[in-house]
Amino acid sequence: MATITPRTLSGFMELLPGPQQQMERFLQTLRDTYALYGFTPLDTPLVESAEILLAKGGGETEKQIYRFQKGDADLALRFDLTVPLAKYVAMHAGELAFPFRRFQIGKVYRGERAQRGRFREFYQADIDIIGDGKLDIANEAEIPAVIYSTFTRLGLERFQIRVNNRKILNGFYSMLGLSEQSGAIMRTVDKLDKIGPEKVRALLVEEASLTEEQADEILRFIAIRGTNAEVLEALKAYQGKNELFDAGLEELGTVVKYLAAFGVPETHFAVDLTIARGLDYYTGTVYETLMLDHPEIGSICSGGRYDNLAAYYTDRQLPGVGISIGVTRLFYVLQEQGMLNGALNTAPADVLVLPMTQDLTAAAEAATYFRSRGIRTQLYTEQKKFKAKLGYADKLGIPFVAFLGEDEIAAEKISLKNMKTGAQELLSLEAAADTVLAVMEDRNNGKLIKA
Amino acid sequence: MATITPRTLSGFMELLPGPQQQMERFLQTLRDTYALYGFTPLDTPLVESAEILLAKGGGETEKQIYRFQKGDADLALRFDLTVPLAKYVAMHAGELAFPFRRFQIGKVYRGERAQRGRFREFYQADIDIIGDGKLDIANEAEIPAVIYSTFTRLGLERFQIRVNNRKILNGFYSMLGLSEQSGAIMRTVDKLDKIGPEKVRALLVEEASLTEEQADEILRFIAIRGTNAEVLEALKAYQGKNELFDAGLEELGTVVKYLAAFGVPETHFAVDLTIARGLDYYTGTVYETLMLDHPEIGSICSGGRYDNLAAYYTDRQLPGVGISIGVTRLFYVLQEQGMLNGALNTAPADVLVLPMTQDLTAAAEAATYFRSRGIRTQLYTEQKKFKAKLGYADKLGIPFVAFLGEDEIAAEKISLKNMKTGAQELLSLEAAADTVLAVMEDRNNGKLIKA
Repeated sequence: MATITPRTLSGFMELLPGPQQQMERFLQTLRDTYALYGFTPLDTPLVESAEILLAKGGGETEKQIYRFQKGDADLALRFDLTVPLAKYVAMHAGELAFPFRRFQIGKVYRGERAQRGRFREFYQADIDIIGDGKLDIANEAEIPAVIYSTFTRLGLERFQIRVNNRKILNGFYSMLGLSEQSGAIMRTVDKLDKIGPEKVRALLVEEASLTEEQADEILRFIAIRGTNAEVLEALKAYQGKNELFDAGLEELGTVVKYLAAFGVPETHFAVDLTIARGLDYYTGTVYETLMLDHPEIGSICSGGRYDNLAAYYTDRQLPGVGISIGVTRLFYVLQEQGMLNGALNTAPADVLVLPMTQDLTAAAEAATYFRSRGIRTQLYTEQKKFKAKLGYADKLGIPFVAFLGEDEIAAEKISLKNMKTGAQELLSLEAAADTVLAVMEDRNNGKLIKA
Repeated sequence: MATITPRTLSGFMELLPGPQQQMERFLQTLRDTYALYGFTPLDTPLVESAEILLAKGGGETEKQIYRFQKGDADLALRFDLTVPLAKYVAMHAGELAFPFRRFQIGKVYRGERAQRGRFREFYQADIDIIGDGKLDIANEAEIPAVIYSTFTRLGLERFQIRVNNRKILNGFYSMLGLSEQSGAIMRTVDKLDKIGPEKVRALLVEEASLTEEQADEILRFIAIRGTNAEVLEALKAYQGKNELFDAGLEELGTVVKYLAAFGVPETHFAVDLTIARGLDYYTGTVYETLMLDHPEIGSICSGGRYDNLAAYYTDRQLPGVGISIGVTRLFYVLQEQGMLNGALNTAPADVLVLPMTQDLTAAAEAATYFRSRGIRTQLYTEQKKFKAKLGYADKLGIPFVAFLGEDEIAAEKISLKNMKTGAQELLSLEAAADTVLAVMEDRNNGKLIKA
């Protein structure tokens, strides 16, 4: 009878129930943390007019986008959450209060070449703060706090937020008379971690046409290391030569200054002059976040300051600052690295009520009572052997089984079995619910990522 | 500079921040309630192979589906959550424990004619229980409890779950020798509420080619009304003539029998012999849910029992029972009818920290402290006049403003203003957090829908 082999498209993540519970916890942690910082949730369509999504145009985007006709309409699936935000703010500017702080967690689509660990449908989790005409630097200082809280609440400990300022870079290149080449230089410097300083120097001379002196000057600059205070101090040597540089240095100083007040420890934050971020539209502070034990994964949360969010849709100047987490890829990596905390409950229910009588009235009442106490409860209804029933709870990892046979019903009690310890007790419904709630509070108390 | 007018596609809901907060609460209530009944969350791709989605084929689906090519792939957007579930269970049957209880809340796509209150992208919120080969009737008895809890937790009071059993209908038609015409009869009877019994009778005779006697017999049957016990009693008159009928009556009896044990009051449940549900694949119990004050809206939660979920993808027999809520449309209707509870907080933050000094350290520390207490906090950073700052809190409906000027900083206190009452107090940070938490608990305590 079956005529079609069921399959899921390559590059589209589809999880089994256990991992899906972990993903839900991931998403819920993001929602809760973003909300704690006063960001409001948005939800925009996954399908937009192709003209809207491609307003900016550009090679890769255009190649990767899922675009299609429906009737006369030229449509496409969104490939990020920034373009829909730009559209939204341009459309509703009159109804929003600025600074407008929104988060959005949603799927986006890119028809990339299929590859292990690369996804064509994936969740992004973005926050942005949009100003109307102006946006104070203090907003940029607050962003590291959101990043720090997010990953700490997820359970990650060994990570570092790295920050730079594009004005410092552009100002510095301008001092050297290299404004024209700044794009090429940044792309080359970006390879530092991969190819090392010697090769970067060679490329700067050969490909970006810099003099040996200019290349040395750049290498000296990006070699500036140390505590945040030390780096800022070293940068002062360049002060007073270029306005843009000076403005960038002051901004960076402000970001560093408020770190402690925003609760970000020095251990998790570093000024890093090698960070530029590829995207053209960043104009000030830029952020990357590295897992210290897995630098090969690259940045797990990036973003920065931009001067004009929605130039294609409105003449209103809308500066902003934002960051994005590629949730699906990060989840995949955490899974692959065995970093997800298996001690957390991923079962669909906290209690499985197992009726041992034909009539289910007492069992249904018990399930109803547990649910009224906020306990996730399943009533097992199938006519199976006792062993098969217990095996079901076991396979799903349900922590408690509540047996209801004639003896229990007569005594107005239930037999509650803790599937982990094997302990079984005859208890009143109320006492059983208390027991379950206490154990489950403990079981749900951990964090998603193993420290 | 702006070159494109920003717009959102017609038939695609996009909410402003306030209503979006209400929608989030709606979705969270569904997630929580479904989880309470032991359903596990699933998340499947929005894009599938067109061959998979269209395995069943059929006119309307094929016309409405969003289908497109990407490279060689023939793709489509899912138009419901049932087909992806069928695919998922067929693919992963070996890894799942049966009965498999899942919920899924996600967007689906149908290119319907644009019309007020009709959406082309909309959320469905589904639960299903899938058995392997068999599935006990007790599962069908539990579904009304999920429906009852869901709407009660949302705050709806005046609704009724209406239940019938397709075996009763099919058995009854068989008794009359009308098995062949059962489809046409059900479609006609379905119009009863709209056109009345006289016209239904006429249509049965003229269009479905029934004799006058047969039509009368059917009208007598669907006129059976009363309490659940009375309806079941009246149905006994037909017992013993047809096996299918007898099986359906027993099933219906079981569903009704366990209602009280599952916590569903009689007031919110009615056996209704006129309900058939259009879809062919329902084979047993069928459910509809009506808003008693808005019957014109039609069913807000429907579903039923089916015998074979995934016949196109597997030879494994997978019977199930499920229901679906059309979330986007229901939300739209509730909004239109003014039924959403405006007293619930929809602001992006509970507290706005307003610094009155140039240096933001103390204000950032205060914000960090509030957040550590679980209070959603925004730090206002812009250089504006005092009135504009307060106006911002007001426009967003943020319940509390915490002022921090030099006096407050010197005293290690803040001035907390309750924006609703206008009351302002000089408090320690700790006392201020206590005040905010107490008020917010109250403000968040209501239900989404006004009773």
